[in-house]
Amino acid sequence: MIKIAVDAMGGDYAPKEQVEGAVLAIRMIDDIEITLYGDEVEIRKYLKSDERITIVQSEGVIGMGEKDPIYAIRNNRKSSMALALSSVKTGDNDAVVSSGATQALIAGAHILIGRMKPMKRTAIAPLIPNVKGTNTIILDAGGNIDIKPEFMVQQAYFAKVYAQEVLKIVDPKIGLLNIGSEPGKGRELDKEVSILFEQNKNINFIGNVEPKEIMDPPCDIIISDGFTMNIAMKTIEGTAKGLGKMLKQELKKGFFGKIGMLLSARNLRNFKHRLAPEDIGGAMIYGLKGVVVKAQGSSHNIGFYNGIRQAAIIVREDVLKKVKTIIESDVL
Amino acid sequence: MIKIAVDAMGGDYAPKEQVEGAVLAIRMIDDIEITLYGDEVEIRKYLKSDERITIVQSEGVIGMGEKDPIYAIRNNRKSSMALALSSVKTGDNDAVVSSGATQALIAGAHILIGRMKPMKRTAIAPLIPNVKGTNTIILDAGGNIDIKPEFMVQQAYFAKVYAQEVLKIVDPKIGLLNIGSEPGKGRELDKEVSILFEQNKNINFIGNVEPKEIMDPPCDIIISDGFTMNIAMKTIEGTAKGLGKMLKQELKKGFFGKIGMLLSARNLRNFKHRLAPEDIGGAMIYGLKGVVVKAQGSSHNIGFYNGIRQAAIIVREDVLKKVKTIIESDVL
Repeated sequence: MIKIAVDAMGGDYAPKEQVEGAVLAIRMIDDIEITLYGDEVEIRKYLKSDERITIVQSEGVIGMGEKDPIYAIRNNRKSSMALALSSVKTGDNDAVVSSGATQALIAGAHILIGRMKPMKRTAIAPLIPNVKGTNTIILDAGGNIDIKPEFMVQQAYFAKVYAQEVLKIVDPKIGLLNIGSEPGKGRELDKEVSILFEQNKNINFIGNVEPKEIMDPPCDIIISDGFTMNIAMKTIEGTAKGLGKMLKQELKKGFFGKIGMLLSARNLRNFKHRLAPEDIGGAMIYGLKGVVVKAQGSSHNIGFYNGIRQAAIIVREDVLKKVKTIIESDVL
Repeated sequence: MIKIAVDAMGGDYAPKEQVEGAVLAIRMIDDIEITLYGDEVEIRKYLKSDERITIVQSEGVIGMGEKDPIYAIRNNRKSSMALALSSVKTGDNDAVVSSGATQALIAGAHILIGRMKPMKRTAIAPLIPNVKGTNTIILDAGGNIDIKPEFMVQQAYFAKVYAQEVLKIVDPKIGLLNIGSEPGKGRELDKEVSILFEQNKNINFIGNVEPKEIMDPPCDIIISDGFTMNIAMKTIEGTAKGLGKMLKQELKKGFFGKIGMLLSARNLRNFKHRLAPEDIGGAMIYGLKGVVVKAQGSSHNIGFYNGIRQAAIIVREDVLKKVKTIIESDVL
């Protein structure tokens, strides 16, 4: 049995969507057991059966709008997030899924689980939808503002193993996010990383990827430092939001427009769905001693279920061990 | 009379759209004269009247797909772009408008016109549409990969004067593109720039702007270094393209969907228009001794006309002199 710790209190709609997501996961996936960390009374409201589900009472919650999330997780060791993370450290569980505040989760994971030995930096790798209808791995969406080229090689290895084992992609292709497609573009970091990737026979490097290809990329994995990828990720979000508003403003203009919009309502909803982080699942934090999956804060039950499903695959395929092997066999 | 040099041969649809754009500008704007640089025979095909329009024959074109655009402009001094740029240096014209290759235009402007004395770096500042229905100034979309904080202050001054004089915004607000909205976020550069902006009474600094607000920003100007802004700009482009494709894929599904899409066709076209660089106009290159406006390579006549209109306003309002005054009065 794969044992999964669920932070039932983290997220915009906790604990309802988290508990429902866990119940869905139990129904859909045979080889998992779930421990829900949170307020038992609240959790019970949404839990009909205890089949393969245990509840562990926590005290306090790391809020989504926490001013200082790192302080919060440090000083709230009995919060649902902290207890869930610790349970992986002690071996009680194999993986954690949380849709709580990202920074608190990263900091908590560092403090309570720790970094995997050979990896020098952690990274967060969300999935984003692409035009082909599949997902692209994007990293580092985390906080590595200053990073050495060698550390990005390790992160590329991790993404490769993840793509192979979890997304079942054969020989995954990796591209470097850059301002031009020609070799030699970008900052010193980009130039150095390009050379390291180029020379590395473990990495199927396709070269630079321009952000204008970000939703229809010629590769399975797009990598950059934490600052740049954060800018790109949040620009996607901002553009999608902005275009959505503008589309609505335009579509409802005029008589035919209004009727057209009514008839298109279902398809417009599907379109929105296709972009919802919901249906894509969570972001894995690379580089820890345990499996930590961050589901979107705005996750509903399906989104949270997808995070659990992902975590189960990561454990089942022994991703961490495979990453360790590839990094350790490497002479950096 | 304001004298404007038009590079008639640069752009995806040159010279047709450039000449038509120039003709439109002559019809709409009373106080301008235009000199078209290009192939006279080709230009004549689209030119019905010579009213306030002169043609200067050029030799060769800087191609849009030029492998080495900087080499091309250096070694093709009789090209339409080079002649147009030189005409501003000699004083024959007050401004240049070109939709030719961006890199060639920047390099050519440096070589043939030169940098404005007190400005240490040039920058390119396009306009992007926002949810409010106005435009936001974005800079630097150019090539300043490594830039000093003080130079970004100069660029902020330029953007401020541009926003006041050309976009007629009173006391324009400026925000720094960053990965978080709280002070102290980002790289060393961002922290230093924030402090300089904060302390500068000439800059109405509103703090960090997250890219998720990029199409609905709380300010009129968004600034960052050339690498970061390039990533953001191209991510907007990529997201818009990707979402457009996905929207189409979804909208045409099913019977009602198809009818709805037909009825919405006009509004969808308007939506597309609203995003077209066309209707927004050109990007100004800040920091030169002359006025250089880059219209989008894919500009049609309206887009090119908008570039000319912008250039005329910049000259009429004496933007360069006003920028010089504010920079020179400043103790850096």
